[in-house]
Amino acid sequence: MTEEPLETEDEAWGVNERLLADVRAAVEAGDGATLSALLDDRHAADIAHLLEQIDARERRDLLTAWPGNLDGEILSELTESLREEVIEQLNPAELAEAVRDLDSDDVVDLVEYLDEEQQSAVLQALDASDRVVIEQALTYPEESAGRHMQSELVRAPEHWTVGETIDYLRSDVVLPDQFYHIILVDPRLKAVGYVSLGRVLSHPRATPLKDLTEDSFRTFHVEQDVEEVAQAINHYHMITAPVVDSDDRVVGVITIDDAMMFLDEEHEEDLLRLAGVGEGSLSDSVLETSRQRVPWLTVNLFTAILASLVIAIFEETIAGLVALAVLMPIVASMGGNAGTQSLTVAVRALATRDLTTANVWRVIRREVLVGLINGVIFAVIMGAVGMVWFGAPLLGLVIAVAMVINLVIAGLSGAGIPVLLEKLGFDPALASGTFVTTVTDVVGFFAFLGLASLILL
Amino acid sequence: MTEEPLETEDEAWGVNERLLADVRAAVEAGDGATLSALLDDRHAADIAHLLEQIDARERRDLLTAWPGNLDGEILSELTESLREEVIEQLNPAELAEAVRDLDSDDVVDLVEYLDEEQQSAVLQALDASDRVVIEQALTYPEESAGRHMQSELVRAPEHWTVGETIDYLRSDVVLPDQFYHIILVDPRLKAVGYVSLGRVLSHPRATPLKDLTEDSFRTFHVEQDVEEVAQAINHYHMITAPVVDSDDRVVGVITIDDAMMFLDEEHEEDLLRLAGVGEGSLSDSVLETSRQRVPWLTVNLFTAILASLVIAIFEETIAGLVALAVLMPIVASMGGNAGTQSLTVAVRALATRDLTTANVWRVIRREVLVGLINGVIFAVIMGAVGMVWFGAPLLGLVIAVAMVINLVIAGLSGAGIPVLLEKLGFDPALASGTFVTTVTDVVGFFAFLGLASLILL
Repeated sequence: MTEEPLETEDEAWGVNERLLADVRAAVEAGDGATLSALLDDRHAADIAHLLEQIDARERRDLLTAWPGNLDGEILSELTESLREEVIEQLNPAELAEAVRDLDSDDVVDLVEYLDEEQQSAVLQALDASDRVVIEQALTYPEESAGRHMQSELVRAPEHWTVGETIDYLRSDVVLPDQFYHIILVDPRLKAVGYVSLGRVLSHPRATPLKDLTEDSFRTFHVEQDVEEVAQAINHYHMITAPVVDSDDRVVGVITIDDAMMFLDEEHEEDLLRLAGVGEGSLSDSVLETSRQRVPWLTVNLFTAILASLVIAIFEETIAGLVALAVLMPIVASMGGNAGTQSLTVAVRALATRDLTTANVWRVIRREVLVGLINGVIFAVIMGAVGMVWFGAPLLGLVIAVAMVINLVIAGLSGAGIPVLLEKLGFDPALASGTFVTTVTDVVGFFAFLGLASLILL
Repeated sequence: MTEEPLETEDEAWGVNERLLADVRAAVEAGDGATLSALLDDRHAADIAHLLEQIDARERRDLLTAWPGNLDGEILSELTESLREEVIEQLNPAELAEAVRDLDSDDVVDLVEYLDEEQQSAVLQALDASDRVVIEQALTYPEESAGRHMQSELVRAPEHWTVGETIDYLRSDVVLPDQFYHIILVDPRLKAVGYVSLGRVLSHPRATPLKDLTEDSFRTFHVEQDVEEVAQAINHYHMITAPVVDSDDRVVGVITIDDAMMFLDEEHEEDLLRLAGVGEGSLSDSVLETSRQRVPWLTVNLFTAILASLVIAIFEETIAGLVALAVLMPIVASMGGNAGTQSLTVAVRALATRDLTTANVWRVIRREVLVGLINGVIFAVIMGAVGMVWFGAPLLGLVIAVAMVINLVIAGLSGAGIPVLLEKLGFDPALASGTFVTTVTDVVGFFAFLGLASLILL
């Protein structure tokens, strides 16, 4: 997280206050020439970022005043919801023109959610060979490596030398925009290894490629989850991940820059799911945002009512000693916080595969012990506060014991529930929070009010 | 987040249940030969992962039974707390031997936190030229690009041709293990552009490098925050980020695989900070973990007491109608959840620079409106529940109005507080949560009990 103040000169990449003001003025005036001067030379990622900073009406006017400039690169950089909005304003011919020069993975990314008419217009505009590749990619599952790989790659027969490879690359062949490895294949196109370009460049022409292959080589299957591939790329520091079909023929690659983007999206999802926000971006409308958040709030309402039902059991106890109503949220709140701490550590460790069956019991044991220790610490503090505040030592005792109980339960449920959800096949980031805070609310109120009714009345 | 069940064959990279069991048995038996057979050919990242799965005693025994195998690669892959533990078991000579073949950034990473004796032992073991590089890097600020760059890179005079470059690379020069670009420098070593190896390989020998430079070229200053560099690498899809000193001379590079790691660490920090966990890894001890979590729980205790003080103001009101004690946590809980939703979206958008001064008012306005809409929705539901449950229409009205107030305030504070903290130079991920839930607790209790005392009694 950057700690830059919001006003830095270059606050959002190349998109600063000044540029935004200039662009807005030009959009208002419908001044295409000024827009061209301001935007034509910018990086596609910066233009996409700028489009995300302005509102929907300004975006529409900008695209009208600066026509034909929205190329495929910019479309690829836009967040999904904005991309849909912008694509709706393009006719199929413009869209087809925009995507023509993209790598296959970017084309797939753009067309996969288009309606049928738009999709077939784009596909028809591509060369036949490109079209076949895109159509093939669209047959793989949504989150698979096959769907997200780029088919542009450089293969070489395993028996080639450095010299033959260089001659081939210098010939009239179409090469990917960016590539970092040459993938060696056997006569049946099965991938058998790869060689980094640095090694090719630094060895004499006669050197066989086979002598230069790298240990980091491993392949991924087209049906494999693309996030798994991205995690492996990160774990093994790979730059190029070859993707193979069921016959082990290499049919594409996933490169590290795309893997970085997938992991980034995955982190965002985890963070938002933990907060009960699901999908959603900053440019979604008010109604859309409201709709996204209602489900989790509804779940929370049920769990809050459940906690209230526990309180209702002890209505008479509270009527007998109103101080209990004053103090009872403290125990629940501390439990909720401690539970969220354990939970977040567990969810993160599951995502990074640091938490496995091998150490799950050690981790749960640790969380319970941490809960016990912190429970005792805050029991002493809060017991004293309760005693001093209300001048009732027994009340202090009740809150202290309830605190220990709830923080132990917080550690147990905070670590245990995500593990259990994962074992059952659910996403622990999505559902754990509700369960854990429900447990700590219910246990917190029950322990505190129950002990109070036993000891104080 | 992977949804794989915990028992998958290959659950944690190459480290599955079976391997762990075999390694544990061999460690127990002190059987170095079996350990070598099991581990020698594995990727350093997998061995590090395995070391993280077993406990401290097993780690010590493993290192004793499998001596001399803990090379620098494995050390680099370990999480920081484990790395310290392991390094303590190595004598300076072993340590120096282990780091000899690492890139400069990995050496810096290993030695920066060593005590003076160990650090100087390692530095003395390096070649003089390597030592100078490391010592220079250690003079840059901790989180700077200069501290984290690798000095191994390939420069070429800007007037060279493809042929001259290839001849140079084939000569007796020491090249980095991995490199993806050749950086062009002018006679004063100022970086003026770069060329990808793919372009060098695919052009005739006579082609000047200058004709092959890429648009994506931009440089970063040694003092710049390394996270900013990593974000730029992600934003602009760069593979190599050249780092320059104050005279614009290129002195190192940060590569995308390291950037991916920095962003990953940053995400983890954000996630853990939002949950009030601060630092911390799964292998920390119980006491260490307890210590890390106490500060946030202490803050939470104060805020919970603050909320209790608000309740205490209305003790008489509650004594008059105990149903209020039953229902009051619901309004606070809904506010806390809605506030956390707004807050998480805002914190994430600040981190990705999607939330800027350009759109901050639009975002805050949106969050307030979302709060209003969801407030009305849950006011209707909860008003009805309150009415039916307690048969008191006015009680239903009180809870409904309090709900609307609290969810509007949740949206306002959830979006506004992170922005304010960032403007003041604090990390919004660290501090926002406390402020927001304090606000929603206090407002929730105050609105509900205050309205109740006005309307019901």
